[in-house]
Amino acid sequence: MNQTQAQQWLSSMTLEEKAAMCSGRDYWRTNELERLGIPSIVMMNGPHGLRKLDEYEVNFDVSECAPATCFPSASALASSWNMELLEEIGIALGKECHAANVDILLGPGVNLKRSPLCGRNFEYFSEDPYLSGQLAKAYIIGVQSQGVGTSLKHYACNNREARRMTTDAIVEDRALREMYLASFEEAVKGGKPWTVMSAYNRVNGSYCSEHPQLLNGILKEEWGFQGAVVSDWGAVNILSEGIRTGLDLEMPSSDGLGADNIVQAVRAGKLSEEALDKAVERLLNLVIRSMARKGLPVDCDYDRHHQLARTAAAESIVLLKNKQSLLPLSKGQQRIALIGAMIQAPKIQGGGSSHMKPTQVDDVTEAIASKLGEGAELVYAPGYDLESEESNLLWVEEAQAAAASSDTAIVLVGLPEKYESEAYDRDNLRIPSNQEEIIRAMAQVQKNVVVVLCNGSPVEMPWADDINGILEAYLGGQAFGGALADVLFGDVNPSGKLAETFPVDLRHTPAYLSFPGEEDRIEYREGLFIGYRYFDAKNIEPLYPFGFGLSYTSFEYSGLQVDKRELSDVETLTVRLKVRNSGDRVGKETVQLYVRDNESRLIRPEKELKAFAKVELKPDEEKEVVFTLDKRAFAYYDPEQADWIVETGDFDILVGQSSRHILLVETVHVRSTSRIVRKYNRQSSLGDLIADPLLTPIVSQLINGMADSKEKHNSEMMAIFIREMPLRSLVAFSKGTFTDEMLDGLLQQVNAVGAMSQEV
Amino acid sequence: MNQTQAQQWLSSMTLEEKAAMCSGRDYWRTNELERLGIPSIVMMNGPHGLRKLDEYEVNFDVSECAPATCFPSASALASSWNMELLEEIGIALGKECHAANVDILLGPGVNLKRSPLCGRNFEYFSEDPYLSGQLAKAYIIGVQSQGVGTSLKHYACNNREARRMTTDAIVEDRALREMYLASFEEAVKGGKPWTVMSAYNRVNGSYCSEHPQLLNGILKEEWGFQGAVVSDWGAVNILSEGIRTGLDLEMPSSDGLGADNIVQAVRAGKLSEEALDKAVERLLNLVIRSMARKGLPVDCDYDRHHQLARTAAAESIVLLKNKQSLLPLSKGQQRIALIGAMIQAPKIQGGGSSHMKPTQVDDVTEAIASKLGEGAELVYAPGYDLESEESNLLWVEEAQAAAASSDTAIVLVGLPEKYESEAYDRDNLRIPSNQEEIIRAMAQVQKNVVVVLCNGSPVEMPWADDINGILEAYLGGQAFGGALADVLFGDVNPSGKLAETFPVDLRHTPAYLSFPGEEDRIEYREGLFIGYRYFDAKNIEPLYPFGFGLSYTSFEYSGLQVDKRELSDVETLTVRLKVRNSGDRVGKETVQLYVRDNESRLIRPEKELKAFAKVELKPDEEKEVVFTLDKRAFAYYDPEQADWIVETGDFDILVGQSSRHILLVETVHVRSTSRIVRKYNRQSSLGDLIADPLLTPIVSQLINGMADSKEKHNSEMMAIFIREMPLRSLVAFSKGTFTDEMLDGLLQQVNAVGAMSQEV
Repeated sequence: MNQTQAQQWLSSMTLEEKAAMCSGRDYWRTNELERLGIPSIVMMNGPHGLRKLDEYEVNFDVSECAPATCFPSASALASSWNMELLEEIGIALGKECHAANVDILLGPGVNLKRSPLCGRNFEYFSEDPYLSGQLAKAYIIGVQSQGVGTSLKHYACNNREARRMTTDAIVEDRALREMYLASFEEAVKGGKPWTVMSAYNRVNGSYCSEHPQLLNGILKEEWGFQGAVVSDWGAVNILSEGIRTGLDLEMPSSDGLGADNIVQAVRAGKLSEEALDKAVERLLNLVIRSMARKGLPVDCDYDRHHQLARTAAAESIVLLKNKQSLLPLSKGQQRIALIGAMIQAPKIQGGGSSHMKPTQVDDVTEAIASKLGEGAELVYAPGYDLESEESNLLWVEEAQAAAASSDTAIVLVGLPEKYESEAYDRDNLRIPSNQEEIIRAMAQVQKNVVVVLCNGSPVEMPWADDINGILEAYLGGQAFGGALADVLFGDVNPSGKLAETFPVDLRHTPAYLSFPGEEDRIEYREGLFIGYRYFDAKNIEPLYPFGFGLSYTSFEYSGLQVDKRELSDVETLTVRLKVRNSGDRVGKETVQLYVRDNESRLIRPEKELKAFAKVELKPDEEKEVVFTLDKRAFAYYDPEQADWIVETGDFDILVGQSSRHILLVETVHVRSTSRIVRKYNRQSSLGDLIADPLLTPIVSQLINGMADSKEKHNSEMMAIFIREMPLRSLVAFSKGTFTDEMLDGLLQQVNAVGAMSQEV
Repeated sequence: MNQTQAQQWLSSMTLEEKAAMCSGRDYWRTNELERLGIPSIVMMNGPHGLRKLDEYEVNFDVSECAPATCFPSASALASSWNMELLEEIGIALGKECHAANVDILLGPGVNLKRSPLCGRNFEYFSEDPYLSGQLAKAYIIGVQSQGVGTSLKHYACNNREARRMTTDAIVEDRALREMYLASFEEAVKGGKPWTVMSAYNRVNGSYCSEHPQLLNGILKEEWGFQGAVVSDWGAVNILSEGIRTGLDLEMPSSDGLGADNIVQAVRAGKLSEEALDKAVERLLNLVIRSMARKGLPVDCDYDRHHQLARTAAAESIVLLKNKQSLLPLSKGQQRIALIGAMIQAPKIQGGGSSHMKPTQVDDVTEAIASKLGEGAELVYAPGYDLESEESNLLWVEEAQAAAASSDTAIVLVGLPEKYESEAYDRDNLRIPSNQEEIIRAMAQVQKNVVVVLCNGSPVEMPWADDINGILEAYLGGQAFGGALADVLFGDVNPSGKLAETFPVDLRHTPAYLSFPGEEDRIEYREGLFIGYRYFDAKNIEPLYPFGFGLSYTSFEYSGLQVDKRELSDVETLTVRLKVRNSGDRVGKETVQLYVRDNESRLIRPEKELKAFAKVELKPDEEKEVVFTLDKRAFAYYDPEQADWIVETGDFDILVGQSSRHILLVETVHVRSTSRIVRKYNRQSSLGDLIADPLLTPIVSQLINGMADSKEKHNSEMMAIFIREMPLRSLVAFSKGTFTDEMLDGLLQQVNAVGAMSQEV
């Protein structure tokens, strides 16, 4: 048998050398092994840009970072719903990593947005696992096409920042599989990231860095993940336990303690050397993949990347409101008031480990000025202080004067640095009160107010009714200024759609009653129902729904067709429709396809996103959009069967412009091919047996035997009583005609049938 | 030592005789023991009237029942918020039982209304445990004053009817203690019911009839319950397990199987004879209590009880809407249209085991006619069919003609028999569509429409905006007709207030996403947040809030005073305020007192009902209302400490007319006297230690030792990182300066301090 390079190395390593390989060398590097010529790997933070710190020193001072392109944050990019764009950004990031000699970029993050309060939501894509997984996949493919690895993070259920190192997320199997793991599953299977990063927190009692079900079980065995699992920095509890259960690498260095722990565990028989070898082999394969890139030419054009950042930022901006077609603004003679301290200090990225040093930052005022022709005039007023929540009356008056004397006021507001960061969560969804006040002050003096929001995740907008134009720009990266100008003046037609629900009120959000929860134990009590799934099910009107975003043009949907009205769950369904640009500007539209299960044994969301496509259309142009749906589009995760099951029945195919604006509907019938095994016991009800078609012969015999007693209880209530009675009660009520022994015989009989097969 | 009669009997009984005593003789009687002269006890269903079936035969034909007074259902009576009234009804029920030779009346029911869909909600009082417990207490005291026992049911968490015999209600400790058990606790401690009935379902894995925590633990040991625990009919799983864990009596008969099971378990050493003796002694004490009444004169005036039923029904009616003072109606010359098949067949009670045979039933038309003077005219049209949901156009037109030609239309609608019953749940909150249609048809032709609702629990009212007068009459019992007439014409000023929230939409209700849930396992995921606690916390506007009800007069609240601004949790707080009738009619007002905890370590409802008082006031009359609050009004159940704890801090005392109409507020500071013990381990965070004031000396020493590394991590994020780091990470990050042994020593030290004492 031919040994791979990794296997050759492995076979030459001592136990101590292997153990050392599984723990970091220092903060950003893995251990090298000089004796065999195995070099270190360098890992640095992403995800929206390379945070190139000194790899030899623990130094978190970002000002000393090497500059790199600061792309929009993940929450911004998600609004683009544009996989090609994500891949292109991935390519650019990969090139920058290669240029900086970084082997693995620590990103993307695909944790779902369980609560909009989570301080790190800006680093994540969406509340929907399908959308998150697709975007992550594109990003990973892009980065890795450059010979640079990614680290898909934070696996799993790192859905709050507070107490993240000790939190225990209690999540039911269905919510785990259908929601929290599904975004990882898609990205792992489709993107094949070099590494997956295990989260700080616990899930259902076990730390994610020593979680046999999550690591060896689901990630490696079920999903076939071939890369290495890296701990989040400092997330390891007991390293040997981690290695035993599927972790491959502890980061950062634990000064030899981790390696010692492995060696001792192997010597004590608590950890098999085989398990250790598997981890080391995965790590050595990473080294080999990294080495393949070394020496290749650097092809990194930071100016081109700045342009890409601008394109991305513009495509990520969501036009939330545009009453009386206030936007786009004309470029001609006019006076525009630019209001808000953020005009001069725009929030372009979030806080924490992802914070990096841009190569350049667009000046908002200059970018806007560059769009204007002769005779146009700009006036600026800060309006509010970014360092406090307190209003300054003089500033408010100054801003009002500027707005009142202008044709339009552009108000830039958002969440200042300290409001949103890794490591802590927000406790409310408001922007600072002095910013809310300036918006209201603008509305008092000016009809043409455009509010531009810079924030990593949703904010409440109690002022929205007073404002005609609202743009959600998220954290737009270093070219935000240019992108904003492009959108404001119509050089780019906005095409962003929200990848998350904006609630009217924090209290309406799904996790509200259990977020942040009490101390470490966090029960995910809303189960599957996060994001739009919750707002749908509870019939709560959001401020802006998932998938929502306006355009300067309009689109018409028509001709929804399915290639089959009936199919089995091993066949695929092809869905076609036509989209036409019915307005007078070029524009892009994201067509969204949701699936609704019309009837189900298990509780299901009202609808779930299962496909989307972004199409660009010239005025009057029409294009066909084609989607292919497979089993997973119709399936739920059945925790009893521990498998994905499609229940035979009708499913609606819903196509629309947002989760709340469905334009076309078709219904198909899907037949299950799953065979499920049900188990009955003394506490099973007679009704359960009656409902099982395979048991009909056995059960009808039983019921005939009960005919006598049935006649006595002829009310509807008594009929229900008998149907719902646990089988053990048959004995008590039978007056000796049905004994315990007969019940045991019955159970043996029905379980034998169940074990044979049963169609769902 | 003097033996009681029960102990004397017990000491003479064989094992087999004792075992036989613990299981029913037949359907409604316990076993007698002729040898010792121990008679049977007869138990019959309530709770709103005696359902006197033949005690010797299994015959559920209510038409063959002995007649008795049919009082309003529990959900109606709860709206009275009148403890004196409940006690009076209890007395009447006790007299009727004595007259019928029934020893124990199977009621009241104090299960909370987790979902308005539960088919048996009409038999229960409220969504609030305090209100439920108080009303049940008054009822029990009334019945038992007549030497007749009660059975407080269904203990516990029997909150849905579907699959009730196999359901496993998964409920966290806090929700159990603060909500689902609290209504029982109040009724057990205050009312001392002769029996408590164990529910069909399981709670947290164990059947309620063999639940050591619920029966021996909480009910008997903690609450000091001295009566007997009776199984719901057919609820026993394994009788000997029941006896071992605190059940005393299996009902109905299991034809000797139960007794055999006990004898075998005792012989096999699985059940101690001592435990059996305890059960039998409790049952014998029941017999003795029943015997005390035998031979006493019967004093049962069914006509007086009918009058009481009328008073009760009138006081239970809730005036939900009275636009333009449509009500009360004049008695003078006019034409009134009486619309709805329920006019002739009013729904006065619910379906299932509580359904009984009234002594008489008021005719609605006659009752209304009797109020009218000369020249007044009534016209009747059925409007809808009670047997179907389908509209009948001719009937609609007939009803419209009647309404159009009248001055006022009174429309009687509600839930037909099959919509609401024991044994199954509703699947929606609508009244039948033909009834909704008739309401809308009335609104088209008549401005003065009064809709009267007869239903056991909330309905959606999508038609409410079109209607000026709405009365919620619930299931009003046999004197409903007279009571309705009293209220319509102002002979009784309505004073009912809702004991449950009416939602706009079923989907807004707290348990919606998990009701009925999937098969048998029902997680109470909303925890404490049922009823108004949920609508408050989620900021969802209800259709009509908890505690709401209008009057024909108006009330003014003033002068809220507390006798202390600061108190310890072992002191009581006296709260006083004044209520004045500011209108021109005599009326009754229910003053409601809620408590809000301003800050808490554990999640708490926004406010909770802790006292109420009903006062009658003449026009311009003012009365002082005095409430006394004790520790429990401020406490939560701390599951870690397994005790009720008051957290030191500020509490608001809110007084108002409903849960959403608070008129007066005061704030008091309550000091905890609880001492709590916290345990720390390797996964506790440094921040947990820092937050513990008793650990300051130890922790500051530790932190000083870390000063070096702190200087390096001077960002806010790193500060949080260190604070939230589990203690075990201190070892990994210390570069050998803090060893595992040192950590063990630290834990020993901090847990020793914690064990000493800690103020909350």
